[in-house]
This record gives sequence, C-alpha cells and structure tokens, in this order.
Amino acid sequence: ALAAPAIAQSAPKIQWRCTSSFPKSLDTIYGGATDLATFVREATDGNFDIQVFAAGEIVPGLQAADAVMNGTVQMCHTAAYYYVGKDPTWALGATVPFGLNARGMHAWLNYGGGNDLLNEYFNPQGLHYIQGGNTGTQMGGWFRKEIKTVADLNGVKMRIAGLAGQVMGKLGVVPQQVAGGDIYPALERGTIDAAEWIGPYDDEKLGFVKVAPFYYYPGWWEGNLALNFFINNEQWNSLPKNYQSLLSTAAKASTLEMLSEYDYKNPAALNRLVAAGAQLRPFPQDVMNASFAAAQEVYKGINATNAPFKKIYDSMVEFRAQTYLWQQVAEYTFDTFMMLRQRDGSLKPQNG
Amino acid sequence: ALAAPAIAQSAPKIQWRCTSSFPKSLDTIYGGATDLATFVREATDGNFDIQVFAAGEIVPGLQAADAVMNGTVQMCHTAAYYYVGKDPTWALGATVPFGLNARGMHAWLNYGGGNDLLNEYFNPQGLHYIQGGNTGTQMGGWFRKEIKTVADLNGVKMRIAGLAGQVMGKLGVVPQQVAGGDIYPALERGTIDAAEWIGPYDDEKLGFVKVAPFYYYPGWWEGNLALNFFINNEQWNSLPKNYQSLLSTAAKASTLEMLSEYDYKNPAALNRLVAAGAQLRPFPQDVMNASFAAAQEVYKGINATNAPFKKIYDSMVEFRAQTYLWQQVAEYTFDTFMMLRQRDGSLKPQNG
Repeated sequence: ALAAPAIAQSAPKIQWRCTSSFPKSLDTIYGGATDLATFVREATDGNFDIQVFAAGEIVPGLQAADAVMNGTVQMCHTAAYYYVGKDPTWALGATVPFGLNARGMHAWLNYGGGNDLLNEYFNPQGLHYIQGGNTGTQMGGWFRKEIKTVADLNGVKMRIAGLAGQVMGKLGVVPQQVAGGDIYPALERGTIDAAEWIGPYDDEKLGFVKVAPFYYYPGWWEGNLALNFFINNEQWNSLPKNYQSLLSTAAKASTLEMLSEYDYKNPAALNRLVAAGAQLRPFPQDVMNASFAAAQEVYKGINATNAPFKKIYDSMVEFRAQTYLWQQVAEYTFDTFMMLRQRDGSLKPQNG
Repeated sequence: ALAAPAIAQSAPKIQWRCTSSFPKSLDTIYGGATDLATFVREATDGNFDIQVFAAGEIVPGLQAADAVMNGTVQMCHTAAYYYVGKDPTWALGATVPFGLNARGMHAWLNYGGGNDLLNEYFNPQGLHYIQGGNTGTQMGGWFRKEIKTVADLNGVKMRIAGLAGQVMGKLGVVPQQVAGGDIYPALERGTIDAAEWIGPYDDEKLGFVKVAPFYYYPGWWEGNLALNFFINNEQWNSLPKNYQSLLSTAAKASTLEMLSEYDYKNPAALNRLVAAGAQLRPFPQDVMNASFAAAQEVYKGINATNAPFKKIYDSMVEFRAQTYLWQQVAEYTFDTFMMLRQRDGSLKPQNG
C-alpha cells in the first residue's frame, strides 16, 4: 500500500515579502536576501516563497526595519546600524568601531551569546534578529587629499554614518549623511572631501577613484559588517517550527555565501582600482590611535546612560579580548607567512 | 475550503546513515555531521532523517569514504586528506600544506570553481563532495624538546599524516601514523617525539601538555581544514531536488557553525593549556622557509605525474596569490591593530 504522506500540515503555502535596504546593483550584498529566498524556496518546493524587493520598491532602504515593525512586510534584509538614530544599541547587531572581525563576530553571535542578547533587545520591539551575510573588514574610504596625520582630518567633510561619524567628529571630521547615488557628484563638486562605502568590489561601481584617489584602509569602524534579517516577531512566532528552522539554517548559509563572494570578488576589483589610479594608503598610526581613543570616549558616554547597550557591548568586548588573543597565534602567523610569500612572488602559480 | 496540501510528493520519508570519521568526544568536529542532520531533520519535520554514527560504530574512521563508495552507508563526514593513499588529489578537498586559510578556502570552493572541480574528480568515483565544517588554522603540534632550527627536526619521530608527512620527511622528520587514542602513550614512552593534532580545544582533551610541553604554531600544513561530506553519487542523484538543495544549504550552515564553535572555544582552551604549562613557540623562520621550499618540491613531483591533481591545484594556487594580496590590506591591518591593542591591555573590558 502506498504510505500516506506524513507531512500534510508541515509545508503550508506561505508567501512573504522581504524588503532590502540595498539596490540590486550592489549584487553581492543584495544577494544575501535572494540567496536566503532561494534556499528556502528550493527546500520547500516553492511552498515557502519569499519575494525580495530592492530598496525603494516598497519602502526606502533606511526604513526597512520600520516596515517590518509596522507590518508592511514580514521581513527585511538590512544592516542594523542604519537605525542608530532610534538607539545606538542597534549597531551592535551589525558592527561597531574597533569591534570584532568576521570570524570573531560569528563566534560571538552563535556561541558567545550574541544572538540571544540581541533578540532579548529586539523581540520587545517586534523584531526577530538573524544574521544574514558579512562583508569582512571594509576599506577606510576615498579621500581627495592625502591624510598624513590626525591634523589633516580637521574640517574634512566625510560621508560616514552612525557611531563612526561620532568618533570621527571627535577628530575634527565633519560627518555627512549622503545616499549612495549622491556620493560621486558630491565628491566631484567638492561638497564633500571623503567618503567611505564598502570595499573594492562595491566601491569600484561608484567610480570614486576618478574624483578621490587616496584609498585608505582599514575601515576600523567595520572590522566586519554583519548584515541581518529582521523578521516581524508575530510572523516569526506563527511560522511552523520546520519553517523557523529552515529560515535560520538558510540565513547561516547566506552568511557563508556572501562572505565567500566578497572574498572572491574583492581581490580582482582591488587590482583593477589600483590600475585605474587608486593610491592605496594605510591610515597613519596616529590616526588609528586617536580614533581608538575617541571610540572609547564614545562608548563610555553611551554605556553611562544606556543599560541595554552596555549589556550587549560588555558581552562583545569580553569576547573581543579573547578572540584577538587566540587569532594572533596560529591564524595570524600563518597568514603573515603567506602574505610575505605573496609579496616576494613565491605564491605565483609558475612557482608552485 | 481547506486548500489541498501542495507537497504530497515533495517530502518523502527517507532515512540515511552518515558514518563519521570522528569520535563523539571530539564534539566540535563530530558536531559538523550532527548539525547537518539536525538542520535537515527539523526543516523536513523529520521526514529526511540522517542518523550519524561515530567512527568505529559502522566502519573505522579512516574507511568512511570507502563505506560510501561501496554503498554500506549513503554518506559520510570526513576529511578528504585521509585518503591520500588512494591519490593525493583527495587532499585538495580538505587542505594542503601552505594552502588557503578558511576564508580563502570558502571563497575558492564556492566562487572560484573549487567545488565544481572537486566534484568533476569525485563524481566518477561514485562520490558527491560537499564541504561541511572548518577548523581554521591548526596548531603545529606538541614536541618533547624545543625546536630552535631546522637541524633540530632531524630524526624527530612525529605523528603527522599525508602530504605534510612527505614535506616533513624532506627535513629529516620521520613521519608516523598513530591513531588519536594512541598518541599520548606513545609520547609518554618516547616512542614518538612529537605529534600534531588540531588546536587548543581538541588538543587539551588528549593531555599532550603533560608529556610534550612545547606547543608550536602555526600548523602550516593546515592553514584551514575543510571537513566534508561525501554522498554516494547514486543516492545523491535519486534525492528529490528539494532535498538536494536542503542538504547543500545545511552543509553551508554547518560550516559556519563549526568554525564559530572552534573560534569560540579555542581561546579559553589556549589559556588553560598555558596555565597547565604549555610552552607556546612559533616555528623558527628557517623551519618555516625550509618547509615551504620542501612543500614546493613535493608539489612539483605530484604535478609532474598527476594531471587531476595539477588541474585542481593550479586553480587553488591561482586564487591563493589573489586572496593573500587582498587579505593583507583591510583585513590584516585591522587585525594587527586590534592584536596590538590586545597585547597592550587596551581591549580589557574595564578599559572599554
């Protein structure tokens, strides 16, 4: 006899809308949402169908989380630090200046209590938090003039957002909010002097090299950037358990995919940018040191008045000291050796 | 009217057995298989049920892939380099000396053609290859005496396997094959002088610190270790498409999970090992340089006679030069700055 299907209730037809904070042209970061949707759709034979909408199609990119909170859409794909205007605590779900690198972030979120602490914060606001993607350490942005010392930052009008803008402000930078598509003309006209965006693969598309050729690293305000899905908490709680599990699994897979894609595409883009005239520069040590000190001031100010921020920040910072201790042993010495071999030409395929 | 369930054919009851190459006591690495099984089971309400068996329960750990090839089990969780006795090409699915770090490996596998090339090699042998986990860069192992120069390696009997054993052999090391449970007594009795295992969290369990306290880094033969699932190719092809997709998604999620877990657990284990007397030592530069040169000799020998190895190796090596170029820009300078702050105490929570 044919066995009765055992799954009658378990794969209901559900159609959701996911609004992205990103345009389709940023294919790598936008792809975090479409990857998740594909993984979920394929695993359910199309029964759990998440349609992804680019920034602006339903709501503007920076209102994605609001659209989830007010029920316009069931979920969004965004970077939680876009919402520091609501509360700086949001940034801890994405990245904060001098925070963790990507592997540290993943360890803290998945094993160090990060995900639970973030959901403890976001759930009462109607949101369920799940990481979905990572860019890795970002670049420090494009400057029209060279920065040789902290003093050179004084009065620089820089497109930089959130907590990083506050930190830069302490060094004399005048932080500016400029939407992605408006950065190039603002740099060209000299309305702004500098702009940070993401990294080589994304930066190349906006053409900054032509108008602000000094390309600094590292973006100390984004040692990693965890993208994230916010799901309306009622919608999350009403999902069958198998769909909850699948969504969580698919989000982890989309994290691995996005970071892999950036790590694959950034090297070639960096080569093209340098060929096009980008002047690669590390931030001077005094800029790095002053930025670190300024960041600690910003954190002290927030921690003194914001208990939810302090609770999550303390957890992150406790693990931060541990992870950089361990990473400097096997991981860093292996990488250092291999990078020196890259520099001396020993890694060229013909030498292998 | 109640809508008819749309999924009658799509979630058949399937029960598979997955034999692991690892014992349950290595919970982190063994967990790669149980994570995948849990993700798949939960997403299908138990309809796709993968039972995981520890090494030795069905077949010995180092015969896991054979058990898949001959149909004893549908799939296994293993490290492909265990099978270099069949052909060194297998190692490229796991790791090779002076290869990629974890992020480089994931980028190459998922975007650089690695997965496709590996399946082109493994499919005709009846296997479908999927990555499932990563340990990150491993430690260089435990030595009874200090290694101050290449000459100190001469005659050292070291538990080290595969291609790394061949490379070490060129430096005078006498490579030994010793199963995990036998390493401690062999070190204690002096039957062997050194042993490499994995990293702090796993090494601590075997107690090596008591009998071989010099703990070297990095394990240049495992800049990353990609664990992997081998699925019997006929079984893979007979799976419904939705189960194929789910299995692939779950494997990516298990990769993120395992690396997160290692990155979370290794720091505390390293602290405990140092407290217990481990003498942390970087391999001397002349040992690193001689090992790198010896590895190139091993590769030249294999590439000259093994076209499948050369094809996959060339692809990996071409990306290797690219990824270490890019990683030394934003990623490395950020990490370096943070590690210096870790060393000078600035990352201590009370300073944040």
